[in-house]
Amino acid sequence: MAQSVPAVDPALLDDLVAANRILYGKNIVDGLGHVSVRHDKNPNLYVLAAERAPGLVTREDLAIYDLDSNAQTLRERRPYNERFIHGEIYRMRPDVHSVVHCHTPSLVTFCVCKCDLRPLYHMSGFLGRGVSRFEIRECAGMTDMLVSSPPLGVALAKSLGDKQIVLMRGHGATMAGQSVKHAVYRAIYAALNASMQMDAMRMGEVTYLSDEEAMKGMEINDRFIDRSWALWKHEAMGPKQ
Amino acid sequence: MAQSVPAVDPALLDDLVAANRILYGKNIVDGLGHVSVRHDKNPNLYVLAAERAPGLVTREDLAIYDLDSNAQTLRERRPYNERFIHGEIYRMRPDVHSVVHCHTPSLVTFCVCKCDLRPLYHMSGFLGRGVSRFEIRECAGMTDMLVSSPPLGVALAKSLGDKQIVLMRGHGATMAGQSVKHAVYRAIYAALNASMQMDAMRMGEVTYLSDEEAMKGMEINDRFIDRSWALWKHEAMGPKQ
Amino acid sequence: MAQSVPAVDPALLDDLVAANRILYGKNIVDGLGHVSVRHDKNPNLYVLAAERAPGLVTREDLAIYDLDSNAQTLRERRPYNERFIHGEIYRMRPDVHSVVHCHTPSLVTFCVCKCDLRPLYHMSGFLGRGVSRFEIRECAGMTDMLVSSPPLGVALAKSLGDKQIVLMRGHGATMAGQSVKHAVYRAIYAALNASMQMDAMRMGEVTYLSDEEAMKGMEINDRFIDRSWALWKHEAMGPKQ
Amino acid sequence: MAQSVPAVDPALLDDLVAANRILYGKNIVDGLGHVSVRHDKNPNLYVLAAERAPGLVTREDLAIYDLDSNAQTLRERRPYNERFIHGEIYRMRPDVHSVVHCHTPSLVTFCVCKCDLRPLYHMSGFLGRGVSRFEIRECAGMTDMLVSSPPLGVALAKSLGDKQIVLMRGHGATMAGQSVKHAVYRAIYAALNASMQMDAMRMGEVTYLSDEEAMKGMEINDRFIDRSWALWKHEAMGPKQ
Repeated sequence: MAQSVPAVDPALLDDLVAANRILYGKNIVDGLGHVSVRHDKNPNLYVLAAERAPGLVTREDLAIYDLDSNAQTLRERRPYNERFIHGEIYRMRPDVHSVVHCHTPSLVTFCVCKCDLRPLYHMSGFLGRGVSRFEIRECAGMTDMLVSSPPLGVALAKSLGDKQIVLMRGHGATMAGQSVKHAVYRAIYAALNASMQMDAMRMGEVTYLSDEEAMKGMEINDRFIDRSWALWKHEAMGPKQ
Repeated sequence: MAQSVPAVDPALLDDLVAANRILYGKNIVDGLGHVSVRHDKNPNLYVLAAERAPGLVTREDLAIYDLDSNAQTLRERRPYNERFIHGEIYRMRPDVHSVVHCHTPSLVTFCVCKCDLRPLYHMSGFLGRGVSRFEIRECAGMTDMLVSSPPLGVALAKSLGDKQIVLMRGHGATMAGQSVKHAVYRAIYAALNASMQMDAMRMGEVTYLSDEEAMKGMEINDRFIDRSWALWKHEAMGPKQ
Repeated sequence: MAQSVPAVDPALLDDLVAANRILYGKNIVDGLGHVSVRHDKNPNLYVLAAERAPGLVTREDLAIYDLDSNAQTLRERRPYNERFIHGEIYRMRPDVHSVVHCHTPSLVTFCVCKCDLRPLYHMSGFLGRGVSRFEIRECAGMTDMLVSSPPLGVALAKSLGDKQIVLMRGHGATMAGQSVKHAVYRAIYAALNASMQMDAMRMGEVTYLSDEEAMKGMEINDRFIDRSWALWKHEAMGPKQ
Repeated sequence: MAQSVPAVDPALLDDLVAANRILYGKNIVDGLGHVSVRHDKNPNLYVLAAERAPGLVTREDLAIYDLDSNAQTLRERRPYNERFIHGEIYRMRPDVHSVVHCHTPSLVTFCVCKCDLRPLYHMSGFLGRGVSRFEIRECAGMTDMLVSSPPLGVALAKSLGDKQIVLMRGHGATMAGQSVKHAVYRAIYAALNASMQMDAMRMGEVTYLSDEEAMKGMEINDRFIDRSWALWKHEAMGPKQ
């Protein structure tokens, strides 16, 4: 109920609106796709827009959900069908504070092929921790491909496991991060790595980052996200925001 | 005659203008290409711009045609040479209420090759109903490739059959939909699927949607078009329209 | 001398400025490249900007040259080094009234490979008349690749022959047209055809337009250039011009 | 110390700000990457922005460093971790007056593959002097890939040798030039050449520039950079700057 829901840090809401706009501006999401953040005061709640294209989301569209993905606020609005992706990952992964779900073309291409998505450079070192795959046929047979129920959300979260990203066959991808900035960063650089890797694989043998390079690359880049974020937010929201 | 033509729902005209601008903004059409809608009060009429680049079309450019593709209004303007594509599809397919014709690069590429265009993900599930092909040589020999006469329009409509899309060799593609929004959606996602499929095919074996997944994906996405449409219209026409 | 040079039709100058901006907006030229038009009152003169990036060219930058490519006006400005491309084609080809020279990436790719550039669809039917190749080594050995002298201009014009386009190895391409609009159109659609053809060739056997289809396609499209031109000019110069 | 640092030519600072914005606008750098210029009055100093995304850099962000990459001004700001790239190249290469470091996708692709980056056309003739490669494993084993210490900067500068560009495995590229304009030009055309070369290599045998053509092409294009620069600066900084 709304009265029991603590107020979210306004800076976090601003970041979530910016994340929606950034992901759209970078062609990570189109009319569909979504990004959420775990509530900063109650880990059993998360913030996600009601059903709307990410490129149009404002603070007024942001609703609060519990981990069963029941809306605690903004109940008069229709929620995203696939909100269970977010709720079930937050339930299974206490370290995750933000989730992005998207249908980015370069990632969809990897979703339907057997090639592994692997880190080409330090910017996508997070891929070195491994990239999970989710085959919805294994848990639900022939479906409309959407993760639109709690059991499907659980199955997806299990597929993600302890990784940062899961490729969903015939659908798209889902990324997890320790903050909105990290989840957005991973979506952008996973897509860019996928695009470069397709080119590289056509040129012969490819030298990927070693596991150690990937881990160290991820650690250093995770500390410099603010530099990129300042640019992205400036572009998506204008100089004043 | 103009006096016998009932007024078209203004919201439909607005959608048709937006469709022209959206298709241009998404690089589905360039200076050429067109989109039409069946008249909401008389199924034997349809609305299509007089000859003009889609990116410049306004409500003042919209004319009404009968199914023989004779202009009922705006007769002082030159009509599109290929308006028969629209008229003959509306005549043969009562379920179709909007038609897009385009020369989108990723689709032209499939038009001149033998690979089947197949659905990679739920967003293009409509491709699972099959993609027709039109070879103008079969009905008319060596031509300028344009569907610029009633018999050619009939031949194209027959090629389309009960499908949602027909690839026209050496020319482009034509999509049909139950509404302007659906036809525009199909044009956008057919082109995107074609582009991704070219990448995927270079990476080895591809897992396409099964027929059942495609059908279910189409059904669910057909119900969520308004989410994308709101974004597209906002971008193409500005926040006020 | 300036006093003997008749005034050029202002509409032609406007079109030439627009052509510069359109070619830049469409990524056909970058900081380099140029477009000219034959003088409408004296076929032994042509109009070409003094040295400046096409994207910045205004009417004040337009100079008049004779067919030896000596400036007749605006002599205080430095001319393009490669103006001889224009002068020598105008001398050898009375049917040509406009010339575009560019380094467009998709065309440069064909320039350095052995694959023929062939028409995939009616929009590029003009390629069916054949695409010439210019190998500067054959007439001048090891050079800086530029057509920066009258003899090199003559050699290039001879390579073009009676075609509409010549691919220059290690350099770029030059297109000829019966008007500014036609030359610009050919540059845009040659580049687009090149890009699509690269994709198509990777997908197996390609069905190109037959010679007759190409010729008929060219004839019909040459008559509809105004539709595209209105759009391109609107975009490049704003709604008022 | 600040009092011993001579003032930099304001035009040079303007160019450096423009270079940051141009490189961002051309997708050579993203949130990361940087560009520097050697001090015009003291060759043992150079100018580089403090830590900030290049697309946001203003004159207020520009700091002065000595060749050990210690900040001489703006010490309250955090410097780029990889400033040693700049300092050590300036120390080893007196002819170099500007350095660009970037993670451009088409160049990263070449970095992780074994194909040589070679000049396809005169615009990238500078590649004919050779393209170095830097494998950080050879001097430092498994790292986070960053050139974030003086010894790594020395190793990179040694890899660059007397070339204009070095490809850094799993990381990006670094370009050197005799001026800011030349370094920016090389970054832009190295990336464009890489992209075209990937396409060309898929089409069969490629004719690259000969060494002599490349050298002559570089010489002529080095003299015409102002034409492109005027366009780039206009686009990046607006018509007034």
